[in-house]
Amino acid sequence: MKKFVNDPKDYVSQMLEGLALANPDTLRYVPEYNLIMRADAPREDKVSIVQGSGSGHEPAHVMTVGKGMLDAACPGDVFAAPPADYVYETVRLVASAKGVLLLVNNYTGDRMAFEMAEELSQADGVNVRTLFIDDDVAVQDSTYTVGRRGVAGNFFVMKAVGAAAERGADLDEVHRIGEKVNSVTRTMGMALTACTPPAKGSPLFELPDDSVEMGVGIHGEPGRRREKLRSADEMVRELVDAVVDDLPFSSGDRVALMVNGLGGTPIGELYLVYGLAHRQLAERGIEVGRSYVGEYCTSLDMAGASVTLVRLDDEIFDLLTDPAEIPIRVF
Amino acid sequence: MKKFVNDPKDYVSQMLEGLALANPDTLRYVPEYNLIMRADAPREDKVSIVQGSGSGHEPAHVMTVGKGMLDAACPGDVFAAPPADYVYETVRLVASAKGVLLLVNNYTGDRMAFEMAEELSQADGVNVRTLFIDDDVAVQDSTYTVGRRGVAGNFFVMKAVGAAAERGADLDEVHRIGEKVNSVTRTMGMALTACTPPAKGSPLFELPDDSVEMGVGIHGEPGRRREKLRSADEMVRELVDAVVDDLPFSSGDRVALMVNGLGGTPIGELYLVYGLAHRQLAERGIEVGRSYVGEYCTSLDMAGASVTLVRLDDEIFDLLTDPAEIPIRVF
Repeated sequence: MKKFVNDPKDYVSQMLEGLALANPDTLRYVPEYNLIMRADAPREDKVSIVQGSGSGHEPAHVMTVGKGMLDAACPGDVFAAPPADYVYETVRLVASAKGVLLLVNNYTGDRMAFEMAEELSQADGVNVRTLFIDDDVAVQDSTYTVGRRGVAGNFFVMKAVGAAAERGADLDEVHRIGEKVNSVTRTMGMALTACTPPAKGSPLFELPDDSVEMGVGIHGEPGRRREKLRSADEMVRELVDAVVDDLPFSSGDRVALMVNGLGGTPIGELYLVYGLAHRQLAERGIEVGRSYVGEYCTSLDMAGASVTLVRLDDEIFDLLTDPAEIPIRVF
Repeated sequence: MKKFVNDPKDYVSQMLEGLALANPDTLRYVPEYNLIMRADAPREDKVSIVQGSGSGHEPAHVMTVGKGMLDAACPGDVFAAPPADYVYETVRLVASAKGVLLLVNNYTGDRMAFEMAEELSQADGVNVRTLFIDDDVAVQDSTYTVGRRGVAGNFFVMKAVGAAAERGADLDEVHRIGEKVNSVTRTMGMALTACTPPAKGSPLFELPDDSVEMGVGIHGEPGRRREKLRSADEMVRELVDAVVDDLPFSSGDRVALMVNGLGGTPIGELYLVYGLAHRQLAERGIEVGRSYVGEYCTSLDMAGASVTLVRLDDEIFDLLTDPAEIPIRVF
């Protein structure tokens, strides 16, 4: 296993320590509950936003904590849901008078943990609601889900509800915006290689040198089918067609286009994919109003990419362009 | 070869097309000379900053073009210096009345191309100077250099001279700042895996499953030695010690600390490395005043990382914290 790791059981905690050390003024790491929170949370004048998931998807979600996005993220171990009591403690730490919105990518383990934490928090009198994200068009049910999976499109929900909360919207309004963004967001990804969890030390699945997994899940779970490796043009077209035809997006639509790397694909290739996707959308009369290229929701060191589209209207565009201050920056 | 690529000979041009399509308001792609420039260049009220290098190191340098950093980047093909006449044409396109500063990572091919372009531009009456960057402490001379190589520390030179130029400094002053930043910047990297150039289609070198290349170059060229894979603690200590002992950095110094991914290493591992490096510096009495974690100068899909330190003073800190607007963003 070619990784920067000490004891694999410390992988997540040492990553979170590094994250907090790199952001001493803005983030706080609480090792007892394995969580990252804004140093200034709770802010009583705004709804608090919390997201959790397994680790291994960074920057989701521990690296999107900050002004204008999450108030806290409570990750589990690699590819494992956080314990319900850790989620509950996270809510306790950031609960504000205006309430708490819990964001959950639709996986069975995460749903159970968050629903239990929501009940416990409500019993404490916290004003809390939960919103499930399910943007992945690849498969209907899957290894870890009933219904569709939540993947990179999650970023747009976090960004929009984070902006709305920062503007002072109440919990119902923030929830409405999150549901709305989720309803117009669609994603599909593909793997060129498998990923290797630190504790396992070997690839999660076998993928021959001439094959790709089309519609792969972000835990390496199966997608639509195993295919032969083809040209970027052809593979990107399959992703774009699947995403466009699902909502469906139509000629005249204005969209945000995200090309998300799954962890092991260099940014040069992601921009190449972006260019192809952008031109394929133009052929269909779909205009890109805002672009996102980089890593947003990964699967450890998996080589691969996903394509996400969001149908923009003035409200969503406006929320997406609000400022945010999170750890991921280059200067 | 598991990559998103069509014909490998179109890899660079299709990446640059994607980059320009994703940034239509701020960047311009000029295919004749394979260059990316600011849409508003030349700005006659400021010194123009140009950097070139082989491709495959993205985001360096085509993705650091923008307000507060580069005015143009003229990349060559993958791991190949740009032709001298393309560099010359780049200077022609962005030359301003205040002059042009050429930034060159110290590799023989790049030096030759930029020195020739500088002469041709001077003959045209352009006020142009060149600055060489050589932050890599791994080896003295190397496969492609006389003297030390320029690697990820290059980012700090670009950022500081870009900020100084934006503030209106003249060419001599911008050059002075660049030399100063380079003189207090040191880097060393290591490879966990080799990288695969699209046109070659197979790894550039062999690296057994239990081995790493300590001090690797960003074109896969040899470093100090081949070693056994060890714990992150031990490997990071070797990088930090090599960098600290070179300048040397001393107790009481305040530094910028960059952990740079080489293309195939996930950001979770980079934050783990950051935390270890941060603590090792604290043991030596060296304070981190500013942190950078992510990809800044890569080697295609190579798994690995480098550690860079910059000794900060008020002038450098101030320039590094000036705003910049480049393609790499997450919202």
